Amino acid sequence: MKLRDDIERYLAGKLYPFWFDRVAAPGGGFTTYFDRAGKPTGQTDRTLIQQARSIFMLAHAIRNGYGAGRAPGLLADGLDWFLSRFRDADHEGWHWIVDRDGKPVGTDKIIYGQSFVIYAMSECALATGDPRARAAAERTFELVQTYAADTRHGGYREMFLRDWQPRPDGAFGGDRKSFDVHMHLMEAFTTLYELSGREIHRRKLLEVIDVLWSRMFHRGTWTGIAQFALDFTPLPAIMFRTVWGSDRDNEGAPRPLDNTSYGHNIEFLWLFLHALEVLGQSVDPYRERLGRLAAHTLKHGVDPVHGGIFVEGPHDGPARDLQKEFWQQAESLVGLLDAYLLLGDRWYWNAFSAAWDFVREHLVHPVLGEWHALAGRDGTIVWDYLGHAWKNNYHTTRSMVQVLKRLRKVEERGLAG
Amino acid sequence: MKLRDDIERYLAGKLYPFWFDRVAAPGGGFTTYFDRAGKPTGQTDRTLIQQARSIFMLAHAIRNGYGAGRAPGLLADGLDWFLSRFRDADHEGWHWIVDRDGKPVGTDKIIYGQSFVIYAMSECALATGDPRARAAAERTFELVQTYAADTRHGGYREMFLRDWQPRPDGAFGGDRKSFDVHMHLMEAFTTLYELSGREIHRRKLLEVIDVLWSRMFHRGTWTGIAQFALDFTPLPAIMFRTVWGSDRDNEGAPRPLDNTSYGHNIEFLWLFLHALEVLGQSVDPYRERLGRLAAHTLKHGVDPVHGGIFVEGPHDGPARDLQKEFWQQAESLVGLLDAYLLLGDRWYWNAFSAAWDFVREHLVHPVLGEWHALAGRDGTIVWDYLGHAWKNNYHTTRSMVQVLKRLRKVEERGLAG
Repeated sequence: MKLRDDIERYLAGKLYPFWFDRVAAPGGGFTTYFDRAGKPTGQTDRTLIQQARSIFMLAHAIRNGYGAGRAPGLLADGLDWFLSRFRDADHEGWHWIVDRDGKPVGTDKIIYGQSFVIYAMSECALATGDPRARAAAERTFELVQTYAADTRHGGYREMFLRDWQPRPDGAFGGDRKSFDVHMHLMEAFTTLYELSGREIHRRKLLEVIDVLWSRMFHRGTWTGIAQFALDFTPLPAIMFRTVWGSDRDNEGAPRPLDNTSYGHNIEFLWLFLHALEVLGQSVDPYRERLGRLAAHTLKHGVDPVHGGIFVEGPHDGPARDLQKEFWQQAESLVGLLDAYLLLGDRWYWNAFSAAWDFVREHLVHPVLGEWHALAGRDGTIVWDYLGHAWKNNYHTTRSMVQVLKRLRKVEERGLAG
Repeated sequence: MKLRDDIERYLAGKLYPFWFDRVAAPGGGFTTYFDRAGKPTGQTDRTLIQQARSIFMLAHAIRNGYGAGRAPGLLADGLDWFLSRFRDADHEGWHWIVDRDGKPVGTDKIIYGQSFVIYAMSECALATGDPRARAAAERTFELVQTYAADTRHGGYREMFLRDWQPRPDGAFGGDRKSFDVHMHLMEAFTTLYELSGREIHRRKLLEVIDVLWSRMFHRGTWTGIAQFALDFTPLPAIMFRTVWGSDRDNEGAPRPLDNTSYGHNIEFLWLFLHALEVLGQSVDPYRERLGRLAAHTLKHGVDPVHGGIFVEGPHDGPARDLQKEFWQQAESLVGLLDAYLLLGDRWYWNAFSAAWDFVREHLVHPVLGEWHALAGRDGTIVWDYLGHAWKNNYHTTRSMVQVLKRLRKVEERGLAG
């Protein structure tokens, strides 16, 4: 398949090398601060998300046969730096931001970040067998259970101070739950269970899946609701006072209550199917609702004119924000292919194909390979940088690896591609 | 007050000495197997409940000014034996039963037992400052959070295999929750928080209190419901296939769904008031429901003819089982006094007084001081032994210590006593 060959060549020849050439920060750790030309922006802090996602990126490359001669060394050095600089010696868990020398400058315990540590350390242990990575993944899992689990309502609290006391309510996030964080915990527990095979990791994965399906979806359309009170009452999504980097999803004014993110929905679809695969469970009980989720994405999220998917809109009605975020495109490529493989409806293939064309034509830097952060509906670049604290290497590289796996399945099954 | 002097003399002169003379088992650890004459029954296994409750009994004595010259030595020896024999070196947590040599013979992880370890180790650390006891309490708390918390529905699962996998469903208890265990977790977290002052211990105490009040009481009467599915659907209480010793509460045929335990209700009342005191929270928001709970006990649970409290009955109607269990009497003495102090209704004093008369005349061994296990309604002894795996020293000694504290309050406030 020509498309598969093209993407294979692009991933191995451009996208991974972009990061292999740049991700090792001078002085240690990983950096992802790069402007539209791939030059360092001069920002030198190290965020937990940067480190964890870069570790994931390298480990994921190794597990999937990329980066020979480069990724293992980068991973080993970055892991050493991370383990010695980010661990909170007083309260365990992981700092949120440290400076270039490894001095903590942001010490809140943000479960979004702790979750990526579990995910990255598990992927690293699967790639390299490093016992320190496995121990870090398992201990972080325990800390999340001990400090973040909500034994009153189920699910997890998400934002804590350094000593694991919940942050204040409201904009500090201490009294909110989100689809986003629970989805990423599902993602992290999936890979942890893949690594360990332990019943407790399986059980907590099953439990967070149940919380997501029973509490965090809009019934009928099976689209995700962004934010909740601790008791899972849906709330209009607000911006949290946390240094997140530049991801738009947590910036701006409160969202309407009737709002769903196309990128999160379709990302959930494929992460959930992957979780079922690792669990060895059938998709059948979920087929109908996954069909509705995918149909909603297709009907309201996919741009029928320019290709790609929009940012967000109501649970039942046309999209409200028609811009194109890099991460939503990356996750939709995988999710639309999974929808095609699951449901067999050719429209998902067409949507995937048009999204990839949009990405290739507008988001991908033609020489450097990494994607610009944000485009308008027609592909005009809005935020042009290639890397930032949050906008880094995990969505784009993982998307390409996962797309290739699914394109092979499309071929194997003799489906029209 | 003559009554207070009598109980003080009885506790210091008979009840505590009964245990100080006997509780150290030949070869190490604690034993509570004593027949109607206070002679060893010959049974030599050591149960987790026996060890934890004996450690609590000694530590509680020390904290309240009893056992000088005896309790500290007994506690130190027993603690050493316990920590070296009961800890599961492979999976952490604590064995359920070991033999006289310390070899594990029952290794399921029963949260009821783990909870008593938290309680006893916390009380021990408060009494002696022993850092091993505090570390054991804090680590056991973490294990309970990691392995037993139900992150889908809230609350805790209660019965596990040695490696913390849930036991099978039904009679093995893997898919049930109970008022009993959640109440004892409240009791344990209260003393752990009293010890540590840590936010996480306070938070989990508040959460389990919320689970109890929001999920585990019959509305209107505010009486406890015994058993639930994992999602808190009330279920007819069944006997679990666990070696519990001889406590009747977990033996026999399934109970009717419309059933509540007078002893658990009134025990909850005083343990909850104690939790509020340790938390520094006002009782006002709970006063009305506590009044209803106490009124139900008075109306249906208290025997107006012979004194003492019955075993159980429906949530609204006359008692069904009119026997008198030792532990229900012990807990009701404290709870009825607390109801008197809280609500000011003289009937609670009268009920306390009649219950104490019943206990003194029928249950207390006139020479040895410890209580027989079970009597008929009129005081005829049914189960005559003074100690067993579960029928041991925690309920009786703690009851007397707590009754004395409350009698002092009755005097201080100039209430009729």
